[in-house]
Parts: sequence; structure tokens; C-alpha cells
Amino acid sequence: MNKLPRVLIVMGSDSDYPIIEPCVKLLNEFAVITEVRICSAHRTPDIAAELARSAEAVGVDVIIAAAGKAAALPGVLAAHTPLPVIGIPIMSDALGGLDALLSIVQMPPGVPVAAVALNGAENAALLAVQIIAVRDGVMRAKMKEYKAGLVRKIEQKDTALQENLRKLYPLA
Amino acid sequence: MNKLPRVLIVMGSDSDYPIIEPCVKLLNEFAVITEVRICSAHRTPDIAAELARSAEAVGVDVIIAAAGKAAALPGVLAAHTPLPVIGIPIMSDALGGLDALLSIVQMPPGVPVAAVALNGAENAALLAVQIIAVRDGVMRAKMKEYKAGLVRKIEQKDTALQENLRKLYPLA
Amino acid sequence: MNKLPRVLIVMGSDSDYPIIEPCVKLLNEFAVITEVRICSAHRTPDIAAELARSAEAVGVDVIIAAAGKAAALPGVLAAHTPLPVIGIPIMSDALGGLDALLSIVQMPPGVPVAAVALNGAENAALLAVQIIAVRDGVMRAKMKEYKAGLVRKIEQKDTALQENLRKLYPLA
Amino acid sequence: MNKLPRVLIVMGSDSDYPIIEPCVKLLNEFAVITEVRICSAHRTPDIAAELARSAEAVGVDVIIAAAGKAAALPGVLAAHTPLPVIGIPIMSDALGGLDALLSIVQMPPGVPVAAVALNGAENAALLAVQIIAVRDGVMRAKMKEYKAGLVRKIEQKDTALQENLRKLYPLA
Amino acid sequence: MNKLPRVLIVMGSDSDYPIIEPCVKLLNEFAVITEVRICSAHRTPDIAAELARSAEAVGVDVIIAAAGKAAALPGVLAAHTPLPVIGIPIMSDALGGLDALLSIVQMPPGVPVAAVALNGAENAALLAVQIIAVRDGVMRAKMKEYKAGLVRKIEQKDTALQENLRKLYPLA
Amino acid sequence: MNKLPRVLIVMGSDSDYPIIEPCVKLLNEFAVITEVRICSAHRTPDIAAELARSAEAVGVDVIIAAAGKAAALPGVLAAHTPLPVIGIPIMSDALGGLDALLSIVQMPPGVPVAAVALNGAENAALLAVQIIAVRDGVMRAKMKEYKAGLVRKIEQKDTALQENLRKLYPLA
Amino acid sequence: MNKLPRVLIVMGSDSDYPIIEPCVKLLNEFAVITEVRICSAHRTPDIAAELARSAEAVGVDVIIAAAGKAAALPGVLAAHTPLPVIGIPIMSDALGGLDALLSIVQMPPGVPVAAVALNGAENAALLAVQIIAVRDGVMRAKMKEYKAGLVRKIEQKDTALQENLRKLYPLA
Amino acid sequence: MNKLPRVLIVMGSDSDYPIIEPCVKLLNEFAVITEVRICSAHRTPDIAAELARSAEAVGVDVIIAAAGKAAALPGVLAAHTPLPVIGIPIMSDALGGLDALLSIVQMPPGVPVAAVALNGAENAALLAVQIIAVRDGVMRAKMKEYKAGLVRKIEQKDTALQENLRKLYPLA
Repeated sequence: MNKLPRVLIVMGSDSDYPIIEPCVKLLNEFAVITEVRICSAHRTPDIAAELARSAEAVGVDVIIAAAGKAAALPGVLAAHTPLPVIGIPIMSDALGGLDALLSIVQMPPGVPVAAVALNGAENAALLAVQIIAVRDGVMRAKMKEYKAGLVRKIEQKDTALQENLRKLYPLA
Repeated sequence: MNKLPRVLIVMGSDSDYPIIEPCVKLLNEFAVITEVRICSAHRTPDIAAELARSAEAVGVDVIIAAAGKAAALPGVLAAHTPLPVIGIPIMSDALGGLDALLSIVQMPPGVPVAAVALNGAENAALLAVQIIAVRDGVMRAKMKEYKAGLVRKIEQKDTALQENLRKLYPLA
Repeated sequence: MNKLPRVLIVMGSDSDYPIIEPCVKLLNEFAVITEVRICSAHRTPDIAAELARSAEAVGVDVIIAAAGKAAALPGVLAAHTPLPVIGIPIMSDALGGLDALLSIVQMPPGVPVAAVALNGAENAALLAVQIIAVRDGVMRAKMKEYKAGLVRKIEQKDTALQENLRKLYPLA
Repeated sequence: MNKLPRVLIVMGSDSDYPIIEPCVKLLNEFAVITEVRICSAHRTPDIAAELARSAEAVGVDVIIAAAGKAAALPGVLAAHTPLPVIGIPIMSDALGGLDALLSIVQMPPGVPVAAVALNGAENAALLAVQIIAVRDGVMRAKMKEYKAGLVRKIEQKDTALQENLRKLYPLA
Repeated sequence: MNKLPRVLIVMGSDSDYPIIEPCVKLLNEFAVITEVRICSAHRTPDIAAELARSAEAVGVDVIIAAAGKAAALPGVLAAHTPLPVIGIPIMSDALGGLDALLSIVQMPPGVPVAAVALNGAENAALLAVQIIAVRDGVMRAKMKEYKAGLVRKIEQKDTALQENLRKLYPLA
Repeated sequence: MNKLPRVLIVMGSDSDYPIIEPCVKLLNEFAVITEVRICSAHRTPDIAAELARSAEAVGVDVIIAAAGKAAALPGVLAAHTPLPVIGIPIMSDALGGLDALLSIVQMPPGVPVAAVALNGAENAALLAVQIIAVRDGVMRAKMKEYKAGLVRKIEQKDTALQENLRKLYPLA
Repeated sequence: MNKLPRVLIVMGSDSDYPIIEPCVKLLNEFAVITEVRICSAHRTPDIAAELARSAEAVGVDVIIAAAGKAAALPGVLAAHTPLPVIGIPIMSDALGGLDALLSIVQMPPGVPVAAVALNGAENAALLAVQIIAVRDGVMRAKMKEYKAGLVRKIEQKDTALQENLRKLYPLA
Repeated sequence: MNKLPRVLIVMGSDSDYPIIEPCVKLLNEFAVITEVRICSAHRTPDIAAELARSAEAVGVDVIIAAAGKAAALPGVLAAHTPLPVIGIPIMSDALGGLDALLSIVQMPPGVPVAAVALNGAENAALLAVQIIAVRDGVMRAKMKEYKAGLVRKIEQKDTALQENLRKLYPLA
């Protein structure tokens, strides 16, 4: 199990990078090798197909793809690879983001995409880690530590809030 | 202008044929040569890409593509061809068809798809005829005759309804 | 085939012009003659009807119509002409733009409108070019060059992004 | 004020008649003269325009228009007349009827349509009666009697239900 | 028929006044006597009922009611009066205004409300004028003049736009 | 605390009774006295107001109201009583039930309604029981037993399913 | 019945506090003892379960839970307690808040949640008071006084508005 | 890498089994060991928590959870395990299934769920296989063969359709 975990992140436009950045950061914190590419299912379809087709051979474990509107990118990459593909729907002004969400999650039988929430960059990273950890004990241990950290953070916020409120509402 | 008009119709599944049939029939009434193909953006992406890439060379004027759910097919064909692509969103049980509609119409800048209504097979055919007729006087004349026929049909129905109602409501 | 390509652009309100401007610009880059008119299906219905009825005679190839809310303009123009009509739904504050989108795309059988995305001005222009190019080799060549340009732009952005990221995440 | 009240009912397709029939019946019960016409904003736009333009001169007080999908008919009629226009959105399979509802109710400033509920044929008739009754004491009296009848019907149903339930649940 | 036309405008909250103001202004331009009241179907139900019940006796011809969210006000007023009631759904942050729109337009059979567009204050005024004009020749004449004015305004904007564009795109 | 628990159930139409029946049955199983009334916020507003106003005096603890479309009934009852009101949105053909759901849940500040799911008759009964149980130990005990019964039912179904599957897929 | 009323307020994130604050304030005005906790159904599930399980024993009467997006918190707390649980859906950027609303209100049979409007913090507090008041005469009296206060506030605003308008539109 | 692949499938109700069956079948075809359990996030929360907490220890690689309406089950399981969780939203009558879809996909940061399409049982199975195959060459090979099979099936259907159509439309 000594292969290094590797994730390919693809987005349809460089303007999406601020939304995707937490995904890149989080994967780096988990010491996952990341490659971030800009390519479009509609404007550069051959590059998209080639990226997906070659991903397995270059050692990619999981693909993460982010796109907005008629967000075909995750599905198109999934069409060209046996690797698991995670899709991040990107919100735009129109329709509250429903277009991207449905375009990504409503895949037909035969070619799945694992959809996360609108702009859900962090969860895409965590899902990739969970997938890699299926047969990687080191990643599994990191994932557990991450989940424990979530608990600690909320407990601290809970304690702080209660102290503040006790001053405001001594009745309680 | 002696080239015969030719339309390529692509659908994601043979189960969609009953919905697409009025499109095929109507194009044949207009003496447009049609080729109907089954191919999927997600399950047979290479065939889809090849169909679109080769369409211009084999004399196709317009492509019509029908798909449901995360309906990527029209956009994926449009990605691989300079020809105009008409997209027909197919209704399924879920979400009243909103998924297919948004997946087809919300294309990103650079690669248009001409979306028609949910299950709008007849209008896809008519739009293809209108497009071909832009520089084809024979087709333009047929289109005008078709529109005149619509008027006659409604006038007949209007006359029939009023006769029936006059018996029911002699007051009017 | 020496007739100059000509597109009539109609919008319901001059306040929509900033959204429509990319359409006008892009058509001019393709050397398509454009005429831009303000007229409303509801407030100036006779002018709208007359514009559509006379369009063929004055050499218009394609009509593009933009409207918001109960966006009847594209359909009303299509009712009065055999020319292909492209509809651009304009987003407003309410309902995320769903009202304009459905009012334009859900046309009844017999009178198609080619709907593009919400505020999809560029794609309306490109679709008009693709339609004209069906029988116009010069326009077809320009369209192919445009598509090739899209690829080059994304490749440049992709290269730039990867250089920036390599500095931030030397691990990758 | 001895002019007889008169309502013009227009629908886009004769297949809508079963949904519109309660409107026709109810207006006849109120002794309102009704004329029912089939005409389409998109397929017979000139007939639609002429119907609306001539309505005032032939003594029509109120226009009721029913349409489905991209339901432009009520708005198009309103464009051509100073008379009040009531719009009935017709449900179809797609989108739960949201397309027709938004196409009718979201009219732009300047040209109102009075929208009633999806398939709301009865309420269209009652609204027309209420409008005529604004300056017609006889119609006002009938409207009040109609409202009193609604109360009586519900009171009877309420009494019947309670008797039935008392047998089932003697505890209550 | 020398009674002065009179409209009662009711809104659920004084914070809605900026949205309703165009309605008040427009009715005053048409010399319609207006009374504007704040009252809530949920917070002051008895005042709402009394306002509606007494409206006919004090000479009100039409009631206009504006409300947001679970916008019960128009329907509740309509329950207590035989007068025609126009409902203006008010947009709020949530759900793009769909809640108010559906709460107003989807009235059950027996008690109609005439729904206009989200924040459609001007159209509510114009619809009230059209209703009053059903049997009032002076108001009818004003309504026709208003419609003619709409045409002139758009024609001017159209002329201005074309002049500006001719400078930018001399090709056209 | 020897007063008997009592719930008033109000629905807008007797056609809703089959959907509401599980609520009546469940409350009777909990030995809650129920009164079921038909009355409409729009057609019998005075009866609705009187029902709500008198409910406290006749010993009602909780009101449950069910309505469809522009479902004003729960909110109108809540307007006239200090008692807690539970609203059940009733699904109809249109819009997947979204109209009734939003009309009930989106109440303005000051007058709450406790909304349950579309056609959620059982949960309305259980919520009423939970409310009564706030200060009634006997009802609390019954509620706990009900929850324990839910667990037992699911455990039995789980056991049965696994036995069936073990035969089909002995590998598992 | 001399036990002090007590409400447990739980929210998924401290960033929700500004939206929840009106709930805390209002409950304190009603002299209800409040405890405000931060805990997440997804990130701290064991703390959430323990909070709900222990609530009855520490004297909590009602639980209020606020959450956004896939807002599981109210339902998860309801799963672990026989107490009534009120759910406040929190609006976020995406989808107009529809995700949180549906996740809270569409509970399956057996485990109700009392949903209030999006960001409906005040109504959650008032509903809790109404629930407690079912068997607590002091709280019932306060609730009635609160409702009377709502009437007074609206009457004052109504009077003020009419004075202002009388100056602007002396005709009315 | 000699551990056998193992998937835990959990559904909220045995009535969902017909929809989930294709998932079970497909995983068995891939020789994945499956365990199918009925348990509810709301009705049997402790069993759900225990199932998720113990899954890793008993050798489960991936969890698949299916639920309808306020579909909390996938998220609740994900809260209690570091394993990847795939969520299948189940369609019900209401809202076209949008409630289940949003409840599953819109997970908050920290706890991802991999959402597939409404009733997307087959894709849930395929996604599980893709995840397991990340470090399992045998499964990867099977996945590639499965994808190749999809291509063959569509090619056969395409050939059959074209033969049939050639008889109907010899012009083409």
C-alpha cells in the first residue's frame, strides 16, 4: 500500500478557483498529491476526455470536478474513466444553483457521479480522502482525527456561546 | 443550393423513441433526410464525439439531440461540431422534467444549444426546417405553408366548438 | 450565396441593453449585419408583429429576442415569421429567472423558439452564426476558428493556474 | 345600465375545453352572455389580435383567456385591448404547471393580466362576475347570493361529517 | 353613473409601502380616490374582516391587497366581500418570492383573487382602472390614452438606441 | 391535571377526510377527545373565526388544520386563538403540493403555525400528543410507548428482510 | 403546576446566532428559562443525541432547533426525545432556503417536527410559549397580551401612514 | 489486498426495497458481499448510530443509504463513521422528489455524503464498486468490463433502431 494518494481536480473556469481552493488546501493538509486543471466539457471536450482517459495510468485515485450551470464536466469525465468522480455544483446567479446541482446529480444508470453540496469544496476533499482510506490505514486514521477535531471545535464554540449568554440572560 | 437538407437525430436511449417519433415523421414530411442514432454522452462518449465530429463532412445541416435527467447529450455533441444543435429535454418521473430542461438550456458561453420545450419533438423538427430554410427557398415556402395550415386547423376547431356551444347555451 | 448575413435583435426594454451588448458585439465581430430594436410584445404588440412580419422581406436571416418575466416577445415574433427565432431569457430579481426561462422555452407545438441560457447573450449570437453557416462556408470557417480560439484561451488559463499552484503546493 | 353583461372566453386549444367548461356553465348561471373562441397567441396571432381589438366594440366587458405551457395568450390579448383580461393557467404534465402559471402572472408593468389558480375555471367566471358587478347592482346581488350558497353547502357537509364521525368515535 | 371611482389598498406591513407607492401614485394620476390601510390577515384579523365587510357600503369599487410570505391577506379580504380583490405578492429574501405568489394565486374555487406579478404595484393599479372602466367611459378613455403613451415611450427609446448603435456599429 | 385532552381538527373540504383520517384514528388511540369540523378560511370565514375564538373556552388544547392550494386555514385559525395550531398541507395535482406547503409554513412573525409534512396526518396527531404531554405525565408515558413501538416494528421488518435476502444471496 | 417553563434552543453553528437571537430574547421576555447550545447532527451526533435524551429529565418542556442546508438537526433531536421539537430552517445562499425548509418539514410518519418559516426565530419562540401555555394559565394570559400588542402596533402604524398620505394625496 | 469487498446497504423502510433491489443485484454480480438493513434515522436512531459505528470493525468498505422525504439517514450514518457513505434519494409523491434530493446532497462542511440520482440504485452500486476498485485491481478490471458492456448494449440498440427506421423511411 505504498503508492501515494493522488487526486485530480478539474474545473470548468479559472473564475471558479476561489470556490475550489478549500478543496485543494484540505487535500494538501491530508498529504494527498493534487493536480488542478482547467478544462471544459463543452469548450475543450478533447482535453477533458484525454484527462479522464489518462488519469488511471498516471496514478490518480479519485477525480473531483467542479462546474456551474449545465454542469456536464463531472459526468463527461466519468464517461471516460473507471475511477470514482466527485462532482461539485458551482452556484451562479441564476436559479439559486439548481441548474448545476441537477445537471451533476441526476446521472443516468451506468455512469455514476458522487455529488456533493453546492459549492461543497471541503466535502469533496473529505469524500476523496474517505474513498482513498477504504484500503489505506494511514488515511483512515487521519480521517478519524479530522472528525474528532470537528467535535472539539464545536464544543469550544458551544462553551463560548453559553458563557456569553449567561451574562446577557442571568435568568437562564 | 441543390444539396439535399439533412438532419441527424440522436437520442440517449431507444426508450425515448416514441417521444421522438413526431420529430422524425415531421422531418420526413418536409422531405428532409433524417438519420436517427442511439448514443449516450455518458455511456458511449467516444461514439457521441465521433458522430458529432463527422456530421459536417457527411452533409448534416442540423443536429437534434434528445436526452433526459442530467441531459448532457446535446451539449456534448455541440462541443464537437460547428453545426447548430437543437436539444429536446425528455421528461421523466422525477422533478417534473426540470433536471433535463436545465441541463440542456443552461449552456455556458461559447457552445450554444437551441433548447425546445420538454418532449418538444415537433418543434425541434420545425426549428431544424426553419434553420435550413434560412438559405433554401423551397424549404422556406414549405414552412410558410405549414404555418398557414396551423391557422386553418384552429379555425376549423373554433367553428366546430362554437356550433356545439350554441346548442348548449342558446343565450350566448 | 453572396447575400450578407443579417440578424434582427429585439429586446423588450432598453434597460436590458447591457445584458444584450455582448450579443451585438459578437455578431459584429463575425461581420453579421445587426439591427437592434426595442419593442414589447405587450406594450407595442403591433410594432412587434410588424417587425416580425417584415423581417424576411428586408433580408433578415435570424431573429434574436430577449425578454424577462412573462417573456412573450420571442414567441410572439416567432408567431409572425417563418424565420428561426432565438430567445434569451433575462434574469430579474424574482424567482431566480425561472419565469422568463419557462415562458420562452415551453413553446407549444407548431411555433418553435430556440431558447438559450438565462442572460445567454453570447450564445444567442453564436447560435445565429451557426444557423447562418448552415449554407455559408465563410461563416462556417469563422465559427470553427472561434471554437479553436476557445480551446486556446482555456489552455492558457490552465497553464497559468498550474504554474501558480506549483509555487503554493510544491508537494503536488 | 341596461346593457347585458358579456364575457369573451378564449382558449388556446379545443383540448382545454373540459377544463374551461365550469367557467362557461357558471357564467351562464349568472346570465352572462358568453362567447367561447379557440385561438392561439402563437399559431393564429392575427386572429388573436383581431379578437382582442374588436372586443370592446362588440360589447364585451371582460375577457377570460386560458392557456398552458408558455401561456402567452392572456398577455397577448391584454396587449390589444383596454378591457380587463383574466388568465387561467392550464396544467400540463411538465413542471406541475409552473410554466403556465409564471407565463401568465409575471406580466411586465403596463399591461396587467388578472391571474387565477391553475385550472381555476370557476374562479375566472366569478372574478368576471365581480368585475361586472362593480357598477351593476343586479350582478352584485347575485354574487352575494352565490357566496351565501357556499356557506350553506359547507355547513351541510360539516353537519354530515360530524354525524358520521360520532358513530365511529363515540368518545369524542 | 356619476359615482367617483374608489379603491381600497391594504398592505400587511408599513415596510411594504415603498413597493406599493407606484400603485397609489398611478391611481391618483387616474383620479381614482384611494384609501391606503395597514392591516394583517394574521395579526389583526378582525380589522381585516371589518375593512372588507364595510368596503362595499362606503363606496369602494375594487380592493387591492399586498402581502409577502404566506400572503393570506388578499384571500382573507376576498372572503369577506363581494368586491373584486387584486392581490400583489411581495418578494422577500426567501424562495425568490414563490411563497407569496403561490399563496395569493392558488385560491380555491368559490373565492377568486386577481393575482398580478411579484411586486406588481403598477399593474394592480392599472387592473383596478380597467375594472372600473368596464362601465365608465371616462376611465376607459383614460386607459386607452395610457396604453397609447406606453407605445410612444417605447418608440422614443427605440429611436434613441438605434441612433447610439449606428455610431458604434456603422456596418449595421 | 384531570382535564381530558381535547383536539379540534378542521379541514377545508370533506374531500380531504381520507387524508386526515389517520390523524383522527391516532388521536383516538391516544384517548384524546377529537372534534372534526369542515370549514373554509375563504368560503366560511366567519365560521372559521368563531371556531378558533371559541376553542379555548370549550376546552380545546390544540387545533389541527388541514388545507390545500393557497392553504390559509391554519394561519387564519391561528390569528383568532392563543392555542397552538398545527397545519397539514394537503397535496393536490398542481405544483407537487408546494403551494400548500409554503402557504402554511411561511407565516409572518407574530402568529406561528406548526407545519408538518405534506399529507402528514399521523405526525400532526403525534405532535398534538407531544404538546399535550408537556404537562401531562400519562400522555408522556403513552408517547414513549409509541416511540418504543416504532423501534419494534422496524426491527421485525429488518429481521424478515434479512432472512429473505439470505436465501437469495447466500454469498452475503 | 408550579414548575418553571424551560426551552432548550439548539443550533448547528454559532454563525446562526444572529438569526436565532430574537427567539432567545422573546422567550426571556416571556420569562421562559432558555438554554442555548451549539451542536450539529452531523459533526457532533453523540452530543446531539445526549442533549435530546437528557432534555426531559432536566425539565425541558420544548426543544427549538435551527439548521440550514440538509437541516437534519431538528429531526435528529426529535428522534431521541418524546418532547415536542420546533424546527427553524435557516436560509443560506443556495436555493433560496428550500433545502433547509424541506429537510425540516418533510419528516416521515412517526417522528414529527413542528416547522416554522425560514429564519422564523420569533415564531419558534411564540409557538413554544403557546405549547407551554396549553396547561399553564399564566403563560396563556401573557400570550393573549402579546397578541393584543400586535394589534395595537399595527393600528398605530396604520394611523401614521394615513396621516402621511392625506398630506400627499388630498384628493383621497 | 486479499480482503473481500463488503458493502452495507441501509434503507429507511422495507417499502423501499423494490427500488433498492437493482443495487443489491448489481453488487452481487460484482461479487461484493452485501448486507441489507432496514433502519431509520428518526424512528430507530440508536440502531442507525450503532450500525454506522460498528461498520468499519466488521469489515465494511462502503455504506449505501436510501431514504425519502426529509432523508436524514445517509447523513446520520456518515456522522458516525469514517467510511464513505453513498446516499440514494427515494422519490415519493410530493414535490417530485426534491425534498429527498436536497436533504441528502446539501450536507454541511465536515461530513460528506456522495449523492446519486433520485432512485439511482444502480449507480450507487457502481459508485461503491469504483470506490473499492481504487486499490483493488480485480474490481477495477470488472468495472472496465462493465463499462465496455454498456457500449456494446447501446451499439446493438442503435443498429436495431436504424434497421427498423430504414423500412419506415426509405428516403433517409
